[in-house]
Amino acid sequence: MSRITPKEIILKLIDEVWNKGNLDVVDELVCPKYEIKNDPGDAYEFKTLNLSTFKQRVKFTRDAFPDVQFNIKDLLCEDGKVAISWFMSGTQEKDLPNLPAAGKKINVSGLTIYYVSEGKITGHWQVFDRLNVLIQLEANIVRNGLIA
Amino acid sequence: MSRITPKEIILKLIDEVWNKGNLDVVDELVCPKYEIKNDPGDAYEFKTLNLSTFKQRVKFTRDAFPDVQFNIKDLLCEDGKVAISWFMSGTQEKDLPNLPAAGKKINVSGLTIYYVSEGKITGHWQVFDRLNVLIQLEANIVRNGLIA
Repeated sequence: MSRITPKEIILKLIDEVWNKGNLDVVDELVCPKYEIKNDPGDAYEFKTLNLSTFKQRVKFTRDAFPDVQFNIKDLLCEDGKVAISWFMSGTQEKDLPNLPAAGKKINVSGLTIYYVSEGKITGHWQVFDRLNVLIQLEANIVRNGLIA
Repeated sequence: MSRITPKEIILKLIDEVWNKGNLDVVDELVCPKYEIKNDPGDAYEFKTLNLSTFKQRVKFTRDAFPDVQFNIKDLLCEDGKVAISWFMSGTQEKDLPNLPAAGKKINVSGLTIYYVSEGKITGHWQVFDRLNVLIQLEANIVRNGLIA
């Protein structure tokens, strides 16, 4: 029995789901109970997603940044954990809360640890440089109440 | 010959150097040519440090936040790479550029991948939630010119 490895699962998630928007692949890779343990600035932080809400979360980002591309720098795995460092680029084509679309392209860095069990991804722990997103979108974060 | 493992090296760096401020331990753990490959918001990003500038960087943070504590959540290792997810807490007791000290305690999350070769740490790739630092310090980031 040849089984897809945790690293291969994560590479496929990034390539097919995030970079190409093939949401059907989610069913193959993601556990129906997916926990977001840490992800500051993400609307789904601390939530447990099912396959439908997992796809909604991807669609939300891909609708706002249709050309989104994650470019993995480091990839390491031990037991059921896979860590990646990455750059994300994308052009904002749709309004986000407090951030009206202005066609600006951003490029930000982040890291994610994914948890994989029995061939499915069960959750993640992530931080990305969200201040840099706001700076690059030239957000007026005071007027919009994001900063006191 | 029993040699300290990459994981043990990173745990010792966090515990002894960052959490306790034992800068002498840097000589034992850190390569004299230490590269910061990615670390948005860090004054030493993209620089190559020697043991002296490595200690200066630690001292800079520990002077500003003397009670700084890094609390590791995930720890995984493959070959010469060690990934950690973490929370950092600390009370700001000293002014930082654009951020006058107000005795505020912060708690932020981040992830780091450390590179280890021949028993020494040769660099890192890191992202922490620096927007959350500014929010918790109630920085007026517009007036101080950090945001356009």
